[in-house]
Amino acid sequence: MNPGNLYLIPTTLADLKAEASVGLVDWSLPGQVRSTAASLGCFAVENAKSARAFLKMIGIERPMQELEIVEVGHQPQDDTLKPLVGKLLGGINVGVLVEAGCPGVADPGAQLARLAHAAGIRVIPLTGPSSLMLALMASGLDGQRFAFGGYAPVKSPLREAFIKKLEARSRRESETQLLIETPYRNVALWGALLTTLQEQTRLTRAIALTLPQESVLTRTVAEWRRAPDPSAAFDKQPAVFLFLAC
Amino acid sequence: MNPGNLYLIPTTLADLKAEASVGLVDWSLPGQVRSTAASLGCFAVENAKSARAFLKMIGIERPMQELEIVEVGHQPQDDTLKPLVGKLLGGINVGVLVEAGCPGVADPGAQLARLAHAAGIRVIPLTGPSSLMLALMASGLDGQRFAFGGYAPVKSPLREAFIKKLEARSRRESETQLLIETPYRNVALWGALLTTLQEQTRLTRAIALTLPQESVLTRTVAEWRRAPDPSAAFDKQPAVFLFLAC
Repeated sequence: MNPGNLYLIPTTLADLKAEASVGLVDWSLPGQVRSTAASLGCFAVENAKSARAFLKMIGIERPMQELEIVEVGHQPQDDTLKPLVGKLLGGINVGVLVEAGCPGVADPGAQLARLAHAAGIRVIPLTGPSSLMLALMASGLDGQRFAFGGYAPVKSPLREAFIKKLEARSRRESETQLLIETPYRNVALWGALLTTLQEQTRLTRAIALTLPQESVLTRTVAEWRRAPDPSAAFDKQPAVFLFLAC
Repeated sequence: MNPGNLYLIPTTLADLKAEASVGLVDWSLPGQVRSTAASLGCFAVENAKSARAFLKMIGIERPMQELEIVEVGHQPQDDTLKPLVGKLLGGINVGVLVEAGCPGVADPGAQLARLAHAAGIRVIPLTGPSSLMLALMASGLDGQRFAFGGYAPVKSPLREAFIKKLEARSRRESETQLLIETPYRNVALWGALLTTLQEQTRLTRAIALTLPQESVLTRTVAEWRRAPDPSAAFDKQPAVFLFLAC
């Protein structure tokens, strides 16, 4: 028997439980995402509730209760994933869904893909919205060299030291740095960026990507310091911050 | 008068002049890309011929000869871009198209976005295929920390020194490294990766992304060295190479 394929299936960036995200499915996801996700019977998902909301929105082929939805969480363990590899080896196609955006990029998905590669299973990535890519495209910063370094430390002065290290690297390598934070810490991260970065470093804040209220703004740190405080726009909202030192 | 918007519009990853790419438009691009691109009258493009082929495929609203298509090339100069900023300030929406994939990511687009930000123009990124993102998603390598460092030097021993430096950084930062090369140099880059990287480093080659013959394979360097030479699959073909040291 041929093994199944592992499909990495992007979802919209909006809250999948919100009304607004219904229109986004057709608007921001390619036909391949809808067709593929609708045809599958087994899913490894970050969160079962949002995965079900997504599958309902795209209009799956079989009754929801016949789907096998395995919640693997935000930091999956190999023990949770191995039965899924067994299914794949048994010829069943499996889809991976995260809460928003692309599996495996700043989100779970890589571990299952890793086990799949080791077992000789084909891994197929589908096109969809990545907040990191969208923010990078729109920032006007350098997209020829960039890095995403995960989450900054939460506490001072470790956070400021982390930002300084990234800025030194940005200057040395002419490399755009991408940052995300748990939404309720965005304001604290922004404050640390504004106080820590050099005046001439260009700093972008990207919010509500793919949504009607989307806004991507790039200014020098000096300009941001003089501007009215923008933090109400990203307080407790998903956001991407990017900077490029000169 | 309100200024126009600058739209960063992804195209398919296939050769736009090839028959095969027609089906890909609906399959791999969201509705937003088609609707937005079809509604615009002015474009800044990397290559005029492939841009026209793309616009014809998606079915633009006005006659092709009425479109203003400004070829800005692979490394646009500010002098070429400034008249486009003038148009934007005059209320005209402008779309950016590159030969394949997402403007501004390992491709032109960032410079015009930079000028747009400086002029207070809204920059809107649309969702579409990025070979770097797709390769990263499917690689099973770490998507929590990654970097794209542009092109490797062409000559030995500079190329090997560059790879060694990236591998050291990958090990130190637990960071996946992404590489692309001009297609006719893929085989030489692959050879340098296989001879330079450590045995336990995991190395991915991703080819024909979004196409029927797509293939993403991840092996340790030791495993690749023992395997039959895979280079016929990516000789003179677009490919992405990724590695993660341990």
